[in-house]
Amino acid sequence: MRIATYQYQGRRHVGQVSADGHTVTAFELDDASRGAQPLIERAAAGARMPMATGAIVPSSDVKLEAPLPRPFRNLWCVGRNYHAHAKELRETVFKDSAKAVDQWPIVFTKVPECVIADGETVRLPGTAVSSQIDYEAELALVIGKGGKNISRADALSHVFGWTIVNDVTARDVQMRHQQWDMGKSFDTFCPMGPWIVTADALDGTDTRVRCWVNDELRQDARTTDLIFDIPTLIETVSRGITLYPGDVIATGTPAGVGMGLTPPSWLETGDVVRIEIDGIGTLSNRFE
Amino acid sequence: MRIATYQYQGRRHVGQVSADGHTVTAFELDDASRGAQPLIERAAAGARMPMATGAIVPSSDVKLEAPLPRPFRNLWCVGRNYHAHAKELRETVFKDSAKAVDQWPIVFTKVPECVIADGETVRLPGTAVSSQIDYEAELALVIGKGGKNISRADALSHVFGWTIVNDVTARDVQMRHQQWDMGKSFDTFCPMGPWIVTADALDGTDTRVRCWVNDELRQDARTTDLIFDIPTLIETVSRGITLYPGDVIATGTPAGVGMGLTPPSWLETGDVVRIEIDGIGTLSNRFE
Repeated sequence: MRIATYQYQGRRHVGQVSADGHTVTAFELDDASRGAQPLIERAAAGARMPMATGAIVPSSDVKLEAPLPRPFRNLWCVGRNYHAHAKELRETVFKDSAKAVDQWPIVFTKVPECVIADGETVRLPGTAVSSQIDYEAELALVIGKGGKNISRADALSHVFGWTIVNDVTARDVQMRHQQWDMGKSFDTFCPMGPWIVTADALDGTDTRVRCWVNDELRQDARTTDLIFDIPTLIETVSRGITLYPGDVIATGTPAGVGMGLTPPSWLETGDVVRIEIDGIGTLSNRFE
Repeated sequence: MRIATYQYQGRRHVGQVSADGHTVTAFELDDASRGAQPLIERAAAGARMPMATGAIVPSSDVKLEAPLPRPFRNLWCVGRNYHAHAKELRETVFKDSAKAVDQWPIVFTKVPECVIADGETVRLPGTAVSSQIDYEAELALVIGKGGKNISRADALSHVFGWTIVNDVTARDVQMRHQQWDMGKSFDTFCPMGPWIVTADALDGTDTRVRCWVNDELRQDARTTDLIFDIPTLIETVSRGITLYPGDVIATGTPAGVGMGLTPPSWLETGDVVRIEIDGIGTLSNRFE
């Protein structure tokens, strides 16, 4: 099932996208203000997904929002988690690092307020703030049933579904402050969508992630190339920390980011970054 | 003014602590579920602080909660920000670092769900998860009026008030994952309180921070020893990132953490960490 949050006739709705993608059928929710969050909480409590029985409208008549327009807390994000990406960084920006791969996952966060939807504009912050804006195409998982100290074996049963995140990054800010949260959290720096695909409909552990900048293919990998696989990420983040329904974990980006090119290539006004993940769809955003 | 969030007769209230500390007078709020947050938003919108005109009760009859029991997003925290603390780390854990001090502030986050109140228990996560639990006494500021790209000159006008945070840390987890958010975000790892002192009643840029472990004085510094002062921190975090009313920025910890001792000393079951900041009060928590 594909669950979308969208504006229709001036109001926010949450609905199911039809198999052919031509229509969307609203769920009858008391409160759509938190997007898909109430459905996730309901599923986490063990209830079946409700039927979408509300208004059926043509997809062309709605404006997509991020499936979780404002996640309930900072998103969890994973750094340097594809073998080929770790290799490109060793050969460019992190030449002094002797390690082939990290021994433990690198986990940081992005503020929930930087989330925007498919089709919305990422605002470049101005060169006085950063002149090194980069894209990172990522498969993101959405936690359903929460928990603490979740084992690898149980981890996938805690996944409600999958979506796409562009972990937009100000590289200069990321690097100079050592900790990455600020360089990852600029306003509009988290395109998310176009919707959530529920876990029964996609095996996120083996799918293809591609990213184009202005129709030039820059990133192309399968999630089987992850250094720390998805069950390991869930086990890692939940060690000592309770995960809740609606937590988002972006699983890392493949090789091919602008920072990894020689010379590096940064995003500029008018650039369009389009991410496609097989089984989910396309997330496309213009930078201005 | 000292603004406390507390339980009284089974319900959450927000109130003003009397000058002698003997009583607390409730504000008449429509909704106390978010603690002091509605008062902060009101002040941020330019309104005067309302008078506390509700029930007056003896302080001994209430149970304090954190002033913001669940901040609206991850708390911002600053690392290695006192000269003497940077020095102790250079002489112990970061011997290979040639830099006297960092060129830019180190900023990371803690999840809002790990906040607990004065008097509540910090839960040790078990040695299988971490065996290096440490304290960090910190002055924290609470943002009033939000904004982006706030200048140093304007920064202090964005401070609603001051509180105390114990930035409890699992050092092994903090270090091995390179990014610090996870090792800082374990459940119960953010004692906050005992209340917020409004900006008109305290100059946080020059006050004394002390911390005792089982009545042994471990940390003792003035905030004038900060490497990056409070206006600089606000300017830094708000570069490209909108700050909102209720954002919390913990400003870093003085020398004397357990990690900096020779040999290092970690917290154990039964330990009590008590932090006192002049002009605010005392935050005391037992570890179990």
